[in-house]
Amino acid sequence: MAKEFVKDITAMDEDFAQWYTDVVTKADLIDYSSVRGSMIIRPYGFALWDNIKNEVDRRIKETGHENVYMPLFIPESLLQKEKDHVEGFAPEVAWVTHGGSEELAERLVVRPTSEVLFCEHYKNIIHSYRDLPKLYNQWANVVRWEKTTRPFLRTLEFLWQEGHTAHATDEDAMEETIKMLNVYADVLENTLAIPVVKGEKTEKEKFAGAKHTFTVESLMHDGKALQSGTSHHFGTGFAEAFGIQYTDKDGKLQYVHQTSWGFTTRVIGALIMVHGDDRGLVIPPKAAPTQVMIVPIAQHKEGVLDFAYDLKNSLGKVARVDIDASDKKPGWKFNEYEMKGIPVRLEVGPKDIENKQVVLVRRDTLEKIVVSMDQLEEKLVALLEEIQSNLYNKALKHREERTSVATTLAELKESLEAKPGFIKAMWCGELACEEKIKEDTSATSRCIPFEQEKVSDKCVCCGKDADQMVYWAKAY
Amino acid sequence: MAKEFVKDITAMDEDFAQWYTDVVTKADLIDYSSVRGSMIIRPYGFALWDNIKNEVDRRIKETGHENVYMPLFIPESLLQKEKDHVEGFAPEVAWVTHGGSEELAERLVVRPTSEVLFCEHYKNIIHSYRDLPKLYNQWANVVRWEKTTRPFLRTLEFLWQEGHTAHATDEDAMEETIKMLNVYADVLENTLAIPVVKGEKTEKEKFAGAKHTFTVESLMHDGKALQSGTSHHFGTGFAEAFGIQYTDKDGKLQYVHQTSWGFTTRVIGALIMVHGDDRGLVIPPKAAPTQVMIVPIAQHKEGVLDFAYDLKNSLGKVARVDIDASDKKPGWKFNEYEMKGIPVRLEVGPKDIENKQVVLVRRDTLEKIVVSMDQLEEKLVALLEEIQSNLYNKALKHREERTSVATTLAELKESLEAKPGFIKAMWCGELACEEKIKEDTSATSRCIPFEQEKVSDKCVCCGKDADQMVYWAKAY
Repeated sequence: MAKEFVKDITAMDEDFAQWYTDVVTKADLIDYSSVRGSMIIRPYGFALWDNIKNEVDRRIKETGHENVYMPLFIPESLLQKEKDHVEGFAPEVAWVTHGGSEELAERLVVRPTSEVLFCEHYKNIIHSYRDLPKLYNQWANVVRWEKTTRPFLRTLEFLWQEGHTAHATDEDAMEETIKMLNVYADVLENTLAIPVVKGEKTEKEKFAGAKHTFTVESLMHDGKALQSGTSHHFGTGFAEAFGIQYTDKDGKLQYVHQTSWGFTTRVIGALIMVHGDDRGLVIPPKAAPTQVMIVPIAQHKEGVLDFAYDLKNSLGKVARVDIDASDKKPGWKFNEYEMKGIPVRLEVGPKDIENKQVVLVRRDTLEKIVVSMDQLEEKLVALLEEIQSNLYNKALKHREERTSVATTLAELKESLEAKPGFIKAMWCGELACEEKIKEDTSATSRCIPFEQEKVSDKCVCCGKDADQMVYWAKAY
Repeated sequence: MAKEFVKDITAMDEDFAQWYTDVVTKADLIDYSSVRGSMIIRPYGFALWDNIKNEVDRRIKETGHENVYMPLFIPESLLQKEKDHVEGFAPEVAWVTHGGSEELAERLVVRPTSEVLFCEHYKNIIHSYRDLPKLYNQWANVVRWEKTTRPFLRTLEFLWQEGHTAHATDEDAMEETIKMLNVYADVLENTLAIPVVKGEKTEKEKFAGAKHTFTVESLMHDGKALQSGTSHHFGTGFAEAFGIQYTDKDGKLQYVHQTSWGFTTRVIGALIMVHGDDRGLVIPPKAAPTQVMIVPIAQHKEGVLDFAYDLKNSLGKVARVDIDASDKKPGWKFNEYEMKGIPVRLEVGPKDIENKQVVLVRRDTLEKIVVSMDQLEEKLVALLEEIQSNLYNKALKHREERTSVATTLAELKESLEAKPGFIKAMWCGELACEEKIKEDTSATSRCIPFEQEKVSDKCVCCGKDADQMVYWAKAY
């Protein structure tokens, strides 16, 4: 039975894209609807997002930020105030042109991001150095008119948080930008067990309107990279466009220095593609809505269900535990919860009860562990930690195996074909080289990592002197 | 100083509408933006909504519901599937007609509510009686193209939860509808200290597409009613329009019976208009983001700030406590937190420390209470409970004083003018009478209350036999 069920999804190595689609639908994360490019996030998918959201939100609050809510719509004239920003976003927005039966005098954009709304508000509420910093965040839905979409990875509408802050000095804004990048790295590495490379985006890849864009990049099972969170330093660009000024301690008018940073439902795509396998999802315990699923064996026999429910209650104090006491066969349940990536399955039947033990099955290794009842709580807690760190280490090992060095364009191309992944290579800083690399290999610059290595002293493309190392990869 | 500050807002009895606008802006709940009819929910307003949301969400989960997320956009053809529904909503929706630079082949509606999306999804995932009930909820933003808007009460965009459920039988759906109405009543009465009248909407006032609409109605300080939460029984209307069928235990195809129910940011308007006074907001302790604000007196004197912070930490275990240790004058702080409606102010200065006491000031009565340190924790907890029930009782008393009985249309009209509020009057059930009452008095039928009283045996309008009592009022 297990085999039949597994057959239901395409093997990763056979067709990775199809495997992904199979997993998101068969693990009940999403459903499609008649709304092109949008997805329905089903209860299991939403609970997963809610967990991730809570982890991010807690850290956002711990770092002194407050949540607000801005309007969904942006008047066209407001979007146009900052030139680079409107150029970047106008081609990919949804336009509201009618309200009820009337045509609007001014078209409205469905927010693709909310910089301009925060700027307008900041202009209203910031007057003195005493009003700074302003550390705001919002959780919201945004819309970008994408042509090609895939659940979680690229959808017309997605859920995210967007932080928007204003500071007295450039240094304060830079400190904030890096602080929030580190918050993202922390959630990715410690909650989602996804190792990241932290660095700065090139001029070409940075956010429309930003002075600096920083990113955390992760590597998927198939060797493609995924931008997993970005943090932008705006300098005074938006402040000048919107006239956001404060009076400093000496009574002089100064522009504020701004940042923004965002983290989206996209990370669920990363989680799937970093940890998943041919049986489906694998969710790290810290992110899992359900960490332990109890499956009673021969549950019609006297005492089994009572015992299983007692276990659920007692273990509920140390983990997120659920039970499936439906009349489906145990084999069906095993497959179902393997597909859903629940970290630990707990099997308990009449013999186990007699022997004062249960069986724990790890989702990451499928290893079965017989645990005596008097050690269960302790062993379970340790096992969840062990699974969490095993998943991280496995992902890190995979990334390391898939990270190569190239010193020539030919080498870069060859590496990408032989072993898709990150390529570390020097870059002279010229846009022409960046574009040529993309054209020849379809790899893009993922970031200029904070942790630099001098893998050569010449640009991988033009051969001129180069002193910065860049991570290159094909990307989602 | 206190006086000057208070002058800043219009007196309630002078101009209630202006008082309301003053409070929402001066208590920092909202700000306006260039987006017509939309509001910015500022940190204090959002924290308030977050608290209310958590109270509702907890109850929604406790009653077995799961959260999901549906798309923001609805294709025009999908909205048109249920006739009454589209007739009710089409005149007040925002239309997306372009994506990027392209005109769309089919226009999209920005969701005013999501019945049709849930129906489409339910058709996909409901097949057998084993799939029922489906108990879904979503927290989302929705848009209705309102001409006249007021913060919280009526805005182009608002935040809400919308529950959508599918059941095997009509009885199951009715049980659900009433259960969720009771959840709303519970949150309103026990968290927000707002007494409600529970009842059914008339045919004229019910939701577009519903068989029955139930409502919780509350009465504002000015005697106008506010619909504070609604719960709809759809019967099989949507199921037939969308073809949502399941196979019952006997193998027969049956239509599902559906419900939906919603609770919105509107309740913040209710909270303001039920409890507020000429000093600003008054927030019931259970809803308050901050329940106790510590204001140190003569804080430059040695030991005062340390003492105040120690208090914040120790009291933090029993209440949501904050401290304002800024260099603003105490008088300024008193006014600020009275305006923001924080239930209790705690004043502590050098003399208090010497005498091992603090001063508590109730926001609801402005009474000052000297409490010795060794009794503080206990007294504070009791005081918060006392304030919560005092606010409820005060609101209930106000509602009772503002509830009259009328047996003729002239009486109804006179009552409404002399003492705006709820009018209890019999109704024959004819639309013509309901319309005439509205035309003559601008009062609408608020609900046919569950708790019926036979205040007469003739219709208040036409004088014919009538056996149902209706609450009438002018409403927001």
